[in-house]
Amino acid sequence: MKCRRCEEQAVVEVRHAHAAYCPTCFVERCREQVSRAIGEHRMIRSGEKVLVAVSGGKDSLAVWDLLLDLGYPADGVYLGLGIGGYSDRSGDCARAFAERRGATLIEIDLASEVGFTIPQAANTRRMPCSACGLAKRHLLNKTALDHGYDVLVTGHNLDDEVAVLFGNTLQWNMPYLARQRPALPESSGFARRVKPLVRLTERETAAYCVIRRIDYIVEECPMASGNRHLLYKELLNTLEERDPGAKATFLNGFADRVAPLLDDLAAQERDSVGTCSRCGSPTTAEVCAFCRLRDQATRPPRRRKKRRRDRSVHAEESPVTGGESRRP
Amino acid sequence: MKCRRCEEQAVVEVRHAHAAYCPTCFVERCREQVSRAIGEHRMIRSGEKVLVAVSGGKDSLAVWDLLLDLGYPADGVYLGLGIGGYSDRSGDCARAFAERRGATLIEIDLASEVGFTIPQAANTRRMPCSACGLAKRHLLNKTALDHGYDVLVTGHNLDDEVAVLFGNTLQWNMPYLARQRPALPESSGFARRVKPLVRLTERETAAYCVIRRIDYIVEECPMASGNRHLLYKELLNTLEERDPGAKATFLNGFADRVAPLLDDLAAQERDSVGTCSRCGSPTTAEVCAFCRLRDQATRPPRRRKKRRRDRSVHAEESPVTGGESRRP
Repeated sequence: MKCRRCEEQAVVEVRHAHAAYCPTCFVERCREQVSRAIGEHRMIRSGEKVLVAVSGGKDSLAVWDLLLDLGYPADGVYLGLGIGGYSDRSGDCARAFAERRGATLIEIDLASEVGFTIPQAANTRRMPCSACGLAKRHLLNKTALDHGYDVLVTGHNLDDEVAVLFGNTLQWNMPYLARQRPALPESSGFARRVKPLVRLTERETAAYCVIRRIDYIVEECPMASGNRHLLYKELLNTLEERDPGAKATFLNGFADRVAPLLDDLAAQERDSVGTCSRCGSPTTAEVCAFCRLRDQATRPPRRRKKRRRDRSVHAEESPVTGGESRRP
Repeated sequence: MKCRRCEEQAVVEVRHAHAAYCPTCFVERCREQVSRAIGEHRMIRSGEKVLVAVSGGKDSLAVWDLLLDLGYPADGVYLGLGIGGYSDRSGDCARAFAERRGATLIEIDLASEVGFTIPQAANTRRMPCSACGLAKRHLLNKTALDHGYDVLVTGHNLDDEVAVLFGNTLQWNMPYLARQRPALPESSGFARRVKPLVRLTERETAAYCVIRRIDYIVEECPMASGNRHLLYKELLNTLEERDPGAKATFLNGFADRVAPLLDDLAAQERDSVGTCSRCGSPTTAEVCAFCRLRDQATRPPRRRKKRRRDRSVHAEESPVTGGESRRP
């Protein structure tokens, strides 16, 4: 195969675009796709302070690298979740990248800063990924606001977005569908949150890291097995293989024809937000879900209620666990 | 396993209901589910003339049998599609059932009545199942109206409905989503069309036929291989196995929370219908899709355009091919 752009030997095939690229043109293409996503959804404006949520995985390191190369002076934030060796190794990848690029990395260690780890939080009535997603959304938003950042960037790629949309559609979770967008505007108590990788697939971000020699953590989180998000990705991959283009049709059709119908619902949800009586974070309840999670996770073992793993979806829980923002 | 109702030996397990039944109680349960669907969606009113679309498969024969046993004096209509031995065998099943129950079966032979068979129609630019669905919808509706029936019954079961919804959702086909309901009201040029099996799965209708000793055609239509509807069913079965109850959550959530949002769109579509200048059937075009299909299918071979099998969805074509009604 030859590169679509320069006719050199191609190394990466981008099937959904019916094209293949050499390393240089592929990296160039990734930059263009990110630039285009940022422009289309007005994700970052000139002079804004940008914070990237960095897990040490391929997507978050790729988006950080791409933003830096596109001239955005982006800092990173890494949450130490306390998931044993997995957390150690992912932290190492995040730190090594920051050092190599001479970029600032803020580190938040859950155990010392909020008094519990994700394995402890998972020991509550929540599914592990649900507890983790809630803690991450809360702490990333808080860090962005506390440090005066305008925009919080996450590494969600096209496959993540499609899987989250798929999960929320299978349950017709209207409030979650209403806020499924590549860019969520800032609102009272929330930094703007944006997903510049929304035009790139998982395969593309992995190829980008390989070509750019970015060392990322390859292993899946050991607590994520059985996660419904992974099942959705598997089903969607089977669909895409048998009906190429199906993922993009699904995601783009939603953005074009359904999201506009849900604008009113999104606005209603935004208007219903108050502040947590304990920590001041935005919430629709008296005490926010994060404070309640902390209560449960730090309760002495004897008083802890038996953990249930039912499939019912609670108002503030994530039916899908891809780290999707849960804010109105 | 014991029967949930009478404690006799159970022979059918209904997983999504977490129950098992003996033959007698299972048949009783099927009748109740059909009765409930008819009542909930006001499918059939007292004294109305009922016509069942009969293919010779398990679903159409089961629904006909159930309606007769529930006291509805339903007649059947069988379309001879001209698909070789498959059509011969399915016709035999339909005729044998009608004779056994002493019921009236109207037969429409496509070759002699409209001048083409489904294999000939499939030899146009359409996908085979799309051409077949279009011809069936047209001819079944026409037969119902010509013979003065109030209601046209089809054998779509829960799995069919979920697969059609899934396909239309993956493409966010809003007009099709707007008319996805268990009962489509009568309107200008259209008989009411209802799906009384919407509360029973494919496994349940098959078990019903076995218990009731109804001889049905087991083989899949030979022209349906590669049909996207079958792929959707496969994906949904994998989902249901890993996340039991997912199908019902998807279908019921749509009916409860999304269908009401699409009422205006459904009404708009209804209002835009005119009549075909050639056959007088309802259509939004000058000449209806059926007349155009007939032109293509009966055109001499030399003038026939090269058949294309692209994946684009045309305004009046079915993106899914489960025989879903395409009317506003």
